Amino acid sequence: MPFNAFHQIFIKYKSIASTFMELLEEIFKYIDKNKIIGYRFEGPKVVLFTRDKELLVKAPQILQEIAKKVRRRIHIRYDPRLLKEEPEKIEKLIPKEAGLQRIYFEKGRGIVNIEVLFPEKIDLNTINKIKEETLWFPRIYRSPLIRSKTIDMVRAYMFQHSNERIKLLHEIGKNISEKWSIQKGQTWVRVSFLGGASQVGRSALLLQTKESRILLDFGVDLSLPPNNKNAYPIVELPEFDVKELDAVVITHAHLDHVGFVPFLYKMGYKGPVYLTPPTLDIATLSLLDYLRIANENNVKLFSGDDIRNFVKHSITIEYGQTTDIASDVKLTFYNAGHILGSALAHLNIANGYSNVLYTGDYKVKPTFLFDGAQIPQAKVNIAITESTYGDTYHKPREEVEKEFLSFVKEVIKRKGKLLIPVLGVGRAQEILYLLVKSIRANKLDEVPIYLDGVVWEITAIHTAYPEYLKEEIRNKILAGKNPFIDKFVHRAPRNREEIVYSTEPSIILATSGMLVGGPSVQYLKLMAEDPKNAIAFVSYQGPNTLGRQIQSGVREVEIDGQLIKINLEVRSFEGFSGHADKGEIESFLRRVRPGRVVINHGERSKVLHLASYLRKKLNVETNAPRNMDALALRI
Amino acid sequence: MPFNAFHQIFIKYKSIASTFMELLEEIFKYIDKNKIIGYRFEGPKVVLFTRDKELLVKAPQILQEIAKKVRRRIHIRYDPRLLKEEPEKIEKLIPKEAGLQRIYFEKGRGIVNIEVLFPEKIDLNTINKIKEETLWFPRIYRSPLIRSKTIDMVRAYMFQHSNERIKLLHEIGKNISEKWSIQKGQTWVRVSFLGGASQVGRSALLLQTKESRILLDFGVDLSLPPNNKNAYPIVELPEFDVKELDAVVITHAHLDHVGFVPFLYKMGYKGPVYLTPPTLDIATLSLLDYLRIANENNVKLFSGDDIRNFVKHSITIEYGQTTDIASDVKLTFYNAGHILGSALAHLNIANGYSNVLYTGDYKVKPTFLFDGAQIPQAKVNIAITESTYGDTYHKPREEVEKEFLSFVKEVIKRKGKLLIPVLGVGRAQEILYLLVKSIRANKLDEVPIYLDGVVWEITAIHTAYPEYLKEEIRNKILAGKNPFIDKFVHRAPRNREEIVYSTEPSIILATSGMLVGGPSVQYLKLMAEDPKNAIAFVSYQGPNTLGRQIQSGVREVEIDGQLIKINLEVRSFEGFSGHADKGEIESFLRRVRPGRVVINHGERSKVLHLASYLRKKLNVETNAPRNMDALALRI
Repeated sequence: MPFNAFHQIFIKYKSIASTFMELLEEIFKYIDKNKIIGYRFEGPKVVLFTRDKELLVKAPQILQEIAKKVRRRIHIRYDPRLLKEEPEKIEKLIPKEAGLQRIYFEKGRGIVNIEVLFPEKIDLNTINKIKEETLWFPRIYRSPLIRSKTIDMVRAYMFQHSNERIKLLHEIGKNISEKWSIQKGQTWVRVSFLGGASQVGRSALLLQTKESRILLDFGVDLSLPPNNKNAYPIVELPEFDVKELDAVVITHAHLDHVGFVPFLYKMGYKGPVYLTPPTLDIATLSLLDYLRIANENNVKLFSGDDIRNFVKHSITIEYGQTTDIASDVKLTFYNAGHILGSALAHLNIANGYSNVLYTGDYKVKPTFLFDGAQIPQAKVNIAITESTYGDTYHKPREEVEKEFLSFVKEVIKRKGKLLIPVLGVGRAQEILYLLVKSIRANKLDEVPIYLDGVVWEITAIHTAYPEYLKEEIRNKILAGKNPFIDKFVHRAPRNREEIVYSTEPSIILATSGMLVGGPSVQYLKLMAEDPKNAIAFVSYQGPNTLGRQIQSGVREVEIDGQLIKINLEVRSFEGFSGHADKGEIESFLRRVRPGRVVINHGERSKVLHLASYLRKKLNVETNAPRNMDALALRI
Repeated sequence: MPFNAFHQIFIKYKSIASTFMELLEEIFKYIDKNKIIGYRFEGPKVVLFTRDKELLVKAPQILQEIAKKVRRRIHIRYDPRLLKEEPEKIEKLIPKEAGLQRIYFEKGRGIVNIEVLFPEKIDLNTINKIKEETLWFPRIYRSPLIRSKTIDMVRAYMFQHSNERIKLLHEIGKNISEKWSIQKGQTWVRVSFLGGASQVGRSALLLQTKESRILLDFGVDLSLPPNNKNAYPIVELPEFDVKELDAVVITHAHLDHVGFVPFLYKMGYKGPVYLTPPTLDIATLSLLDYLRIANENNVKLFSGDDIRNFVKHSITIEYGQTTDIASDVKLTFYNAGHILGSALAHLNIANGYSNVLYTGDYKVKPTFLFDGAQIPQAKVNIAITESTYGDTYHKPREEVEKEFLSFVKEVIKRKGKLLIPVLGVGRAQEILYLLVKSIRANKLDEVPIYLDGVVWEITAIHTAYPEYLKEEIRNKILAGKNPFIDKFVHRAPRNREEIVYSTEPSIILATSGMLVGGPSVQYLKLMAEDPKNAIAFVSYQGPNTLGRQIQSGVREVEIDGQLIKINLEVRSFEGFSGHADKGEIESFLRRVRPGRVVINHGERSKVLHLASYLRKKLNVETNAPRNMDALALRI
């Protein structure tokens, strides 16, 4: 590096690469330049516009060729100025058995969005016919089996703001492409922990390279009340500047990973959030719910507008789809097996200078709903792993399942009510699936199951994404059979006393999962004094939460200023966890083979335990960072 | 913390404390307010101006009382506008035996600077008489026993720019005092490693608190050529912003700790550098020398003006003198035993929220010149220790001394020349003292000793600071006897061949110490092929340096494009080291009793070795950071 360049180090170096022009020229080796009337970015995608019908129809094959070569996703669409909205024409082309729900034209993009119950009934032939006969570029969406307000809202919002998104996405794509630098060159990578280091909650990692600043998750600590500053990421770290941020990556929709993202928009962030489609839907729902609770507590975190801004700036990507998210960072999501849409984030930095795998929350063994976390095909130099259960081995799943069902039977037999506090997404559907399956198979008496809080709505969202679920469940949904909902499953009535004071036994799944506000606390208050009733903890309880207190034997608690005696039966079932245990983490990392392991997302003692265990077992350097630490990501 | 305040986190919080007014009111309990016509800051000092002669003379006793109470250094001086320069009057008052050298009036400050050979001959009576008869505030300086251009230059420069410094120092003091906050409150402390982590060279630590940014050392890596970017601290770390910097602390004058400070002024830094008086003198000399070499290599690092700016912004403090260097940070230096003026830096952050001891380079056992490192009286939560020799035990000093002297004798006996590459300051004076003492005691034949490079000048500086040296040497200097220089010690002649090709044996001490440029390389070139000659390494040789190569057995090297055969005898003497060895580090830390130990300033393998050793031995958490890492300084 010449010395003059070195003296510009205080001026952030951004190479204005001519590489995008090179990319276009590469494309024009395959496509007649004269047939392209313009181009545009849609985030990481390059969209070429044509007036050549033949090219439009032939495009997919050609583009596959080009994509292999240039490693960018490319679309060819028809000149949108010449398109006419003709819903009837499209309606006719869609086969009846696909179950058409709605059609939405995005004029500025040349895209027609088609929502159907069974997308697999629309074949390539139909797609091509739509293109040929209407010149629109069809995009097919799946409807959930039961109506989901959230999905309707997110999709409608995206389509209504299509023109605004066109601008946003173009800016994002331009930023990535103009700075696009091929050379590995002089660079560096580090990560700062704004939260989630040696703690469970407020996961927030700031990845920094010479060129880019990327947030990996940006959550809240749900075990603290919303008026506690420590519930939020440490944004006052000097290297964090919302104005410098290039991208945000969200690994899954739990609020401890996504809960503070709208705050970024409040502070002026204008860039993208990368996440899977189900994560977008669930996150939107959870954020709205979280905002409501904050408002009820008179805490002004952010506004509905900030949440809408998050939706507007979202770019959804599927598992396995490698995407440029900054000039020097490529992101690939892999199934993490934790909840619907949960992802491991693989980051290839500066063309392999460093390959970082950030696991987010993950589960290695399969659960009812999901396959275990996928082993990334790509190289991994450094793994940043969670360690929620880094010092324990879960009981075998079948054993816990048996114990749980026999406990449920006991409670039903004595005509008690069983409260299961759940996080809304994850354990809720897992438990619900088990209960529904057991009742359907006559392994359990049919009793009413009530879903309170966001559980119902999130369950609906699950039915829109069968491809994210395990084969057995996927096939049920593809066959139009809802694996979660049956006639004995109900949305909880407004008046909770109706359920609690009924003489009939019942099962209640209610948020929050750690008894920190929400309906679950209200049920507890109503149910606690009757020893016939019971509470079953099926997920992680944060330190100092009401859940953890009761779990560890406290038998008198204060709720809403009232002293409540805990007479109901208390049981914990840890094997349902959506987190890898010590053994799973070890076996996962053995196959990933990183050169160094950084451990976060666990209580300090678990982080330290796992660090020392893995150092010996895998014979690699391990790190146990604290919040506010930063680590250079080298080996 | 109220939630509203939390939302201002992006606006850096600075409490505009009224504490300075409180301080003045405390002072006025002891001093009649009406006798004070104004006040001013001189860096951390508060200067009160009076027109009351009686108060001026009585001041010291009163101020001692107040200082105990308010923990700030306070001066009372006479209204400078009424002062007259009367050097003859002062000359008459100074006793002859003090050896008056020069008098310099700083009109704007009301200070008269008096340089003498023997300050201890000026008693309190004389001081008071000067005050009474001239109304000036006398400050007494010691002259070195042999003239030092550097000391003359630094002092003259300071005095000539007195008025400019008045403004600078006032601004610095105002910044500290206006933000002065007493409360421990919500704060945090972390340190980022811009250099010197897992390496020896370019020491540079950025201490960050919620309120302040402080650099601890800011050096260069002398083992790399000046056109290599990696020779300098990593200033592109996002949390480093020269505009945000509040203070720079320099632990000692070696270029790997101070070499890049002028670059800060080049980039617009306008704040203070805290260091001991000898460190200021030696650093100035070394920086000018370094600049000369960089210029010779056509590398534009910084200019002479930037070095002068460093001098102008320097605030010297003595061992044990606690000083506010930021609104929430108090600094105390302690003797580090490494070189003249070297210091351990103790930082009390936010009134004891965290107490950090940064050792810089240190030696625990006494050497010829210095007492071993002092154990700070203050509490230490976290120690950041060097580890240059973190995996080895030095040979006992007496043994090395014997071996060394017998080696010198051998070389003299066979009429060879002995080259000792030295760092200019440190081992040079240590070895010179040993040789002079041995010749004076007839334990060694009298042969000429030549000092080349900056060695002579730095030796002169040593004689100006006897209070920084061990008692034996101090007493010699106080008695006017130079412990380093005798008639057989010479400055090297311009023509080095005169020495090398003489038939008489001789000893040559020349910089640089690792044979990376400077006269030592030129001597080697001239001396290498004659097997009668010899080279003795007495200090640390960095990886990849010419010194390390020859030390480890390479017998043919390229110098200035010329192949040179190494026929001379090569010997290494590690026991002279100015660094603590593994045992010294352990025993030092056992007495300091930190709750956590961070290890830097050592090759990676030594850092890791020491981290694991101390973890077991002291049963505390140890950290082995890399460059670009940051550590939250909590236990």
